[in-house]
Amino acid sequence: MPFDLVIHNGTIVTVNPEFEIIENGIICIKKDKITRVAAVADDRPPPQAKEIIDAGGGIIMPGLVNTHTHLPMTLFRGLADDLPLDTWLNETIFPAESTHINSESVRWGTLLACAEMIISGTTTCCDGYFLEGDVALAVNDFGMRAVLGQGVIDYPAPGVPDPAANVETAKAYVVEWKDISSKIMPSIFCHTPYTCSEETLTKAKSVSQELGALFQIHAAETKDERNRFLSEYQMTPIDYLDKLGILDQNTLLVHCIWLNKADIEIIAARQSKVSHNPESNMKLASGISPLSRLVNYGIPIGLGTDGCASNNNLDLFQEMDMAAKLHKASTLDPTVMDARTVLKMTTIDAARAIGLDDVIGSLEPGKQADIVIVDTNQPHLVPMYHPESHIVYAAKGSDVRDVMVAGNILVRDGKLLTVDLDAIIDRVNEIASNIRV
Amino acid sequence: MPFDLVIHNGTIVTVNPEFEIIENGIICIKKDKITRVAAVADDRPPPQAKEIIDAGGGIIMPGLVNTHTHLPMTLFRGLADDLPLDTWLNETIFPAESTHINSESVRWGTLLACAEMIISGTTTCCDGYFLEGDVALAVNDFGMRAVLGQGVIDYPAPGVPDPAANVETAKAYVVEWKDISSKIMPSIFCHTPYTCSEETLTKAKSVSQELGALFQIHAAETKDERNRFLSEYQMTPIDYLDKLGILDQNTLLVHCIWLNKADIEIIAARQSKVSHNPESNMKLASGISPLSRLVNYGIPIGLGTDGCASNNNLDLFQEMDMAAKLHKASTLDPTVMDARTVLKMTTIDAARAIGLDDVIGSLEPGKQADIVIVDTNQPHLVPMYHPESHIVYAAKGSDVRDVMVAGNILVRDGKLLTVDLDAIIDRVNEIASNIRV
Repeated sequence: MPFDLVIHNGTIVTVNPEFEIIENGIICIKKDKITRVAAVADDRPPPQAKEIIDAGGGIIMPGLVNTHTHLPMTLFRGLADDLPLDTWLNETIFPAESTHINSESVRWGTLLACAEMIISGTTTCCDGYFLEGDVALAVNDFGMRAVLGQGVIDYPAPGVPDPAANVETAKAYVVEWKDISSKIMPSIFCHTPYTCSEETLTKAKSVSQELGALFQIHAAETKDERNRFLSEYQMTPIDYLDKLGILDQNTLLVHCIWLNKADIEIIAARQSKVSHNPESNMKLASGISPLSRLVNYGIPIGLGTDGCASNNNLDLFQEMDMAAKLHKASTLDPTVMDARTVLKMTTIDAARAIGLDDVIGSLEPGKQADIVIVDTNQPHLVPMYHPESHIVYAAKGSDVRDVMVAGNILVRDGKLLTVDLDAIIDRVNEIASNIRV
Repeated sequence: MPFDLVIHNGTIVTVNPEFEIIENGIICIKKDKITRVAAVADDRPPPQAKEIIDAGGGIIMPGLVNTHTHLPMTLFRGLADDLPLDTWLNETIFPAESTHINSESVRWGTLLACAEMIISGTTTCCDGYFLEGDVALAVNDFGMRAVLGQGVIDYPAPGVPDPAANVETAKAYVVEWKDISSKIMPSIFCHTPYTCSEETLTKAKSVSQELGALFQIHAAETKDERNRFLSEYQMTPIDYLDKLGILDQNTLLVHCIWLNKADIEIIAARQSKVSHNPESNMKLASGISPLSRLVNYGIPIGLGTDGCASNNNLDLFQEMDMAAKLHKASTLDPTVMDARTVLKMTTIDAARAIGLDDVIGSLEPGKQADIVIVDTNQPHLVPMYHPESHIVYAAKGSDVRDVMVAGNILVRDGKLLTVDLDAIIDRVNEIASNIRV
């Protein structure tokens, strides 16, 4: 057989550099890689392969890439909403984490997150949490692709009771996971510029440089954070991180809401990357990122959902819709954040933001076969004039029919093939019954 | 049999005045009405009924109410996005309407809209379009509940080639449909304060008063509109409408973005109602309504999706999520538009906005049996701490399992029972193949 898998009878949204859309397309896969992406004549049968998938006239697109998650926080989905940030964090989330986060709960919360992500078309995520070795085990067992960052913070945290060991713990984790799986990329996730000291930040950055691991950090998320840095250091948070040498092309800055022009220029000059999380930023009332200005500077931006305590779901289709609409409203310009720009922020640009754009993010020969098929034969997706418009403005995660990662089919007809979803749901409900207050 | 239908084994979100949530609840229905809503002991079997529905541990809630639609515009879903308002309207939507809108296309576009709405949990809508008699026929055939407004505009429009006949046409339509069906309430929909003259507005309002029909109008949608009224009349659009005597408790003002404090006070004093359409307002970059201030004045507000050319879907679950998050971001206050407030805006408050709060909008004895069951046994709805939080922040229209209107089951296990969806989709695709350019 020339191919292991062939997908045909669908509209391919390649997200290649030309943003080619192939109306009656065919994708051929050998092992874990895409080997051919082409248009076919209507009357020609698909080439021979071990398995042939008929896309049923739907959309064939790259697997989506979520650039910011806290996977185990599915456990706290909807535990506390509509609260002031301080109350939410200090009276609900931090106490819940310190009581209920352990290896066991992290595993099941992560498996639930993977189930939610893969079933809604996300094939890769970039995570930051504690006990990240347990997160990595769960994600690896599940078969998703991920950049997984061990959390670093100058307070006692799950798995790191002594904050003095925070960077060493992160280093040991990265070393351990560096070569275990081609789909798991270990990373270091510093919590914020104000919950990590200068020393912690510089040590963590140096470990990430030494080991070639992505450095992630929440930055410029709240007005309070900005005011705090301005009053304490006469610098913005971005300026502060830059002065410490944290910003380079292997740094992912998460949120980036409270930026001035100089901050944007620094981020662009250092070639750092940005993760934009509109739903979380909106729900926590953190503010609205000046995203269309970042786009104009050519800064690579990926969308992220953030954790389920502040969203409350991991559906990137909805996140695209939100991102496209929010910035039109805030700038009063309906032409910003057009459908193509937004779709790139969950595919090729998201892959670039986490250092994987050579591997995933588009449907092109040589790339990994991380592929999603969207079922368009539904009332809310009819008629279809422009597939990229449907993806951003009309489709939902629940429209995803089939999903594969590295050529492995994980979802077929909307059902998970490789895990026992009922067992995951039951176990999470059991854990949550103790969290419920 | 004491009851025609009994629903049990679910969490009832009643949206009654106490916002009661009944964990293991039962609802009994006789003919088209709810006769009993109660908690049941775990071990007691449900009472006898002709039909018993097991909600499977999901959420049982009132059918959602969409306070602003242009149903036939499903035909133009995604035809043109990301364009300046003028280009979008004048170069795409208006030409498409003048060429492709006729009795036949209105019927199929409306049936598609009904399919999309009912399958995603919307049981009532408030529409405004042309050829509204054809809309009414389709909605009535489909079996949904609706307030349906015949469009009035001082330009030639589909079905009204001579604008001089616009109010008479609307009047004839209201008279015709007044008593045909208990589920169809005819209404008059004036397009805007600037596309209808003073004479047209006052004539239309007087007909709506005479016939007891809801008067709808787009108002204060864009900054341009406000500036135009300020420069031409030295009045805001709301002030202008008030001076003409248009504002009373039977007036639904759609959009209401560009309001000052005096406008809000006028709307409150006249007891007029507001339809808030965040997704459309965002996508067209019209602006962000000062909604939390309207809430503080006690103005009845219902959410709406607007038409599919500016959203691009009719999913009220997504609209709730957007409404809750948008106003938190724009006010930098995470406590505004909490889940209960938002859920009321698609149920009881939406019903109030269109004059149907005695009939629908909550699950209470005596109300119509317009009921939705949400399937919560899904990865993105686990765990569940607060059902109203899930409804607003995590659920999607696709999570709706069963839907009934006036006790008639229209959706079961996510499938439409009473119409041939494939036939509707095929016919709309055929119509759209001529619209495609």
